[in-house]
Amino acid sequence: MPVVSESPIEIVTLDWVPDFARGYVRDYRVRWALEEAGIGYRTDPVSTVNRPVAYFAEQPFGQVPAYREGEVRMFESGAIVLHIAERSEALLPSDPAARARAQCWMFAAMNSIEPMLLELTNVDVFARDEQWAKLRRPSLVATIDKRLGHLATALGDGDYLEGRFTAGDLLTASALRALDHTDLLERHRVLAAYQRRCLARPAFGAAIAAQLEELRTEMPEPA
Amino acid sequence: MPVVSESPIEIVTLDWVPDFARGYVRDYRVRWALEEAGIGYRTDPVSTVNRPVAYFAEQPFGQVPAYREGEVRMFESGAIVLHIAERSEALLPSDPAARARAQCWMFAAMNSIEPMLLELTNVDVFARDEQWAKLRRPSLVATIDKRLGHLATALGDGDYLEGRFTAGDLLTASALRALDHTDLLERHRVLAAYQRRCLARPAFGAAIAAQLEELRTEMPEPA
Repeated sequence: MPVVSESPIEIVTLDWVPDFARGYVRDYRVRWALEEAGIGYRTDPVSTVNRPVAYFAEQPFGQVPAYREGEVRMFESGAIVLHIAERSEALLPSDPAARARAQCWMFAAMNSIEPMLLELTNVDVFARDEQWAKLRRPSLVATIDKRLGHLATALGDGDYLEGRFTAGDLLTASALRALDHTDLLERHRVLAAYQRRCLARPAFGAAIAAQLEELRTEMPEPA
Repeated sequence: MPVVSESPIEIVTLDWVPDFARGYVRDYRVRWALEEAGIGYRTDPVSTVNRPVAYFAEQPFGQVPAYREGEVRMFESGAIVLHIAERSEALLPSDPAARARAQCWMFAAMNSIEPMLLELTNVDVFARDEQWAKLRRPSLVATIDKRLGHLATALGDGDYLEGRFTAGDLLTASALRALDHTDLLERHRVLAAYQRRCLARPAFGAAIAAQLEELRTEMPEPA
């Protein structure tokens, strides 16, 4: 579903990011969830370069996305995806046991998988010229490889973590994108195929296209 | 509420941990949630030293806690706390906007706060003799200090993050315990007071006491 100007749902996005972050800004996760659920939304970009101090009252860490819908004011992409999933069978099964499983994977993605992958991004990108990053990399890669092996075992030969696509897959496939600059995922072929399967969903494609279309391509002037 | 032998809820715990981990094994978070909700439970300890390979089918990463309740089989302490909270106004307000806020803090605790704190535990404890850990510490502490500052601002002069105690506070106060071996929390006095307030709740005390009582004090023989 495209961006709908009169939607009661508004997502706070960024107006610009450096090239390497285009298509990776976390509002795509919320757009993806809304696309899967068939719910329209509009966006309100906040300045990346001149982040208003007042924005921290809405998002405690100054990040995006934030989410507005009537009285509801949210932050944290995982929580927003859960909020959307609670109203859509497409993201969260209504059967209690199946719903519980999907929620397990949502938290696993955010707490047991993503953090070590983001530390690798830190090592490889943001701190790549630091001595500690060079020394740290081997043990971190070993930890990640072991964790991915466990994830691959849990997936087995299933298309999705619990048979059918859920918000747990949405967040897991999103988390794994932190490895896009490496070949670590390819070492676990079922996981690499799993991620391709998730990212081939039309809703993901629509979410990324919408983010790319809205982002400015030239950095605005710092104030 | 004490451990109840006939409860339909069973938590998988560990049978033993080294001294530094006593009172910190993550099943305490689930016990705490159940205590706040007034729901009884029983436990099923798995061997720490001789972890059965079959257990990975129940918990993909081989960790604790896991949770069993009829057809429901769960892992990830955050997801289990959410599952419990969904049935208890004591943990999750029924008002939709307030409920959404509590869920924001649950995910913030697990994805925006805890990961950097656990990396400090890695630096200070598990990798303390590694050169990279010594070199990494200053920038990591700076990142943590900034994040804690934002958290302190969000808390303001409130007793809890959203005025009243929720599952968001339960997971946030739990995450902050990763700093117990440092003085970093004390640099933010409102946060230190907030954590003391959360941990002074009788339900937390009961949860920790139950964990300590059940853990063996001597390491079992490796198989």
